[in-house]
Amino acid sequence: MTYKIAVLAGDGIGPEIVAQARKVTDAIVQKFGHDFEYTEALVGAVAIDKVGNPYPDETHELCMNSDAVLFGAIGHPRFDNDPTAKVRPEQGLLAMRKKLGLYANLRPVTTFKSLIHKSPLKTELVDGADFMCIRELTGGIYFGRPQGRSEDGQTAYDTCVYSADEIERIVRLGFEYAGKRRKKLTIVDKANVLATSRLWREVSQRIEPEFPEIEVEYMFVDNAAMQLITWPKRFDVMVTENMFGDILTDEASVISGSMGMLPSASVGVHTSVFEPIHGSYPQAAGKNIANPCATVLSAAMMFEYAFALMKEGALIREAVDKSLEAGIVTEDIADGKKAYSTSEVGDWLANYIK
Amino acid sequence: MTYKIAVLAGDGIGPEIVAQARKVTDAIVQKFGHDFEYTEALVGAVAIDKVGNPYPDETHELCMNSDAVLFGAIGHPRFDNDPTAKVRPEQGLLAMRKKLGLYANLRPVTTFKSLIHKSPLKTELVDGADFMCIRELTGGIYFGRPQGRSEDGQTAYDTCVYSADEIERIVRLGFEYAGKRRKKLTIVDKANVLATSRLWREVSQRIEPEFPEIEVEYMFVDNAAMQLITWPKRFDVMVTENMFGDILTDEASVISGSMGMLPSASVGVHTSVFEPIHGSYPQAAGKNIANPCATVLSAAMMFEYAFALMKEGALIREAVDKSLEAGIVTEDIADGKKAYSTSEVGDWLANYIK
Ligand SMILES: CC(C)[C@H](C(=O)O)[C@@H](O)C(=O)O
Ligand SMILES: CC(C)[C@H](C(=O)O)[C@@H](O)C(=O)O
Repeated sequence: MTYKIAVLAGDGIGPEIVAQARKVTDAIVQKFGHDFEYTEALVGAVAIDKVGNPYPDETHELCMNSDAVLFGAIGHPRFDNDPTAKVRPEQGLLAMRKKLGLYANLRPVTTFKSLIHKSPLKTELVDGADFMCIRELTGGIYFGRPQGRSEDGQTAYDTCVYSADEIERIVRLGFEYAGKRRKKLTIVDKANVLATSRLWREVSQRIEPEFPEIEVEYMFVDNAAMQLITWPKRFDVMVTENMFGDILTDEASVISGSMGMLPSASVGVHTSVFEPIHGSYPQAAGKNIANPCATVLSAAMMFEYAFALMKEGALIREAVDKSLEAGIVTEDIADGKKAYSTSEVGDWLANYIK
Repeated sequence: MTYKIAVLAGDGIGPEIVAQARKVTDAIVQKFGHDFEYTEALVGAVAIDKVGNPYPDETHELCMNSDAVLFGAIGHPRFDNDPTAKVRPEQGLLAMRKKLGLYANLRPVTTFKSLIHKSPLKTELVDGADFMCIRELTGGIYFGRPQGRSEDGQTAYDTCVYSADEIERIVRLGFEYAGKRRKKLTIVDKANVLATSRLWREVSQRIEPEFPEIEVEYMFVDNAAMQLITWPKRFDVMVTENMFGDILTDEASVISGSMGMLPSASVGVHTSVFEPIHGSYPQAAGKNIANPCATVLSAAMMFEYAFALMKEGALIREAVDKSLEAGIVTEDIADGKKAYSTSEVGDWLANYIK
């Protein structure tokens, strides 16, 4: 069978890190005898420059007709100080999420023994932390309407909206992942203040009896922001709405000390997207120094989540573990020891697999 | 002059910790020859029990006619698993904020040398962190309307609203505090997604030229959630909207390792309210074990912020510092050494002042 992969490298370090993920994927494909077909397409600032749209229709077409999307990163400094620019790279990301129906963003947070000392948290707090953040990605205040200004421009408003169906599908996913893991689900909301959160809780409580083996806890978002730091090991699967998820998943990502190592998958109605959690890191673009591991591990998630090819995914993870052990790492985690380039790390991983 | 203080002890450990703050305040009053008049009133779950309203009209009257409000904590476990209960303690808190026009919540985050080892963060990251979080407290998604359900109950919505005036008064406060401190202001928003955030940024950028000595940075909320952990010392004054502030101030409070030591002030149109940042800690209620220092330091803020009595505030702080040095502390920070009771700590502080 031929797997069709849409490759959306995007901006900044995107092309460099995606190139390494492709090397690794190629090595897997060769070894296991799969057939892969890659097609590249534009997204982000580079798409704005070339065709005036951060998520062009042709890119969307390609994604819809692919079996998975391998995504790099988007964003360019020239937009950073002008958040009201009419066309922005982020809009491409949001359009992609909405049009592909990517309602669930899955971010496993794990630690790596050899990197644990890089965590801002004390080692004993974070060593062994292993949980999955599930963020609702196509609803809430990101997409709710009305959004805008009063006639005189002096008042602005955003709307947070959730339907019971939107909540149910993501909370179910939370229960299912918890079932495959340590059977604990934390549902994060602000039900003491928000009407949408009260519906989240109502729907969740309705589903709860279907999963008697799962221990469920409801946690207010302010408390979750504290617990992520004071006791991250308490979490197994956390599910939350879009805006809270934006904040909490980024908070969660730094506690591991391995930001450059963390992958993500966005799944939903149409084709799934696999991308590193870090950004386009423009300062490093073109320098061949960026850490490709988060993207490589996103490719591992692609094998597992999109194609149910578990052995393939496991081998990629093994390669990354071994590269850490062998010290074949980029400067962000080299810790004063010899740093390898982005492409050297990619080559090493591909060779390990072969 | 007679200062009129409304004392709203509230639920859980509220009465115990407020009692210690009163002892300390009494000692200050004696020493400096001020005249204080305390009047107690109901708030929270205890007010629901007695009069069916978590912020009774008489309590509001009293607050309006007082020079400052000393507040304990609210919340009771019997509401925790029923977030949709019709009358809830939190509603009292929100009503008080709205009716007193408390648009700014000020939370200084500081560290105490002798407690720094209790921080979940590595010592070198947090030692010396010293910043002020300013949270907008009467606007945004907490109070925006419409809020509720569609007719069939299957869709819920909340509205986030901000007017330019609401933004201006809180951002100005941010500039003013930054001016009195290290002259750096971080304005946290999500201007790449939210219309309200774009108005925040517009208003802030309009005010900026009036404060040329202040270095201003704009930061997205997801990034702020990371920076608070990875580099808390970068912050001097942070200002943000209500919901983001709820999350970020709680996150910020745990990094110091001294949750039981952190005070807050809520200021605005009418009487200011001074309260510890921690909750009602129902498990400890009546046990005489809760740490009174956050409430005592809130009283210090009362002297400084409400009455501009700086020496009085400074002496309270000194007393708290000395109690830490002397090891006269409650069990939460005793670290296996002898723990003193809530009232013993209060007595020690009052005696030190006398
Ligand atoms: C770029 C931005 C719109 C986006 C978001 O807020 O979702 C980003 O922060 C993310 O988490 O992917
Ligand atoms: C109790 C709750 C409504 C309140 C809030 O969200 O503002 C609390 O978390 C706080 O921060 O004071």
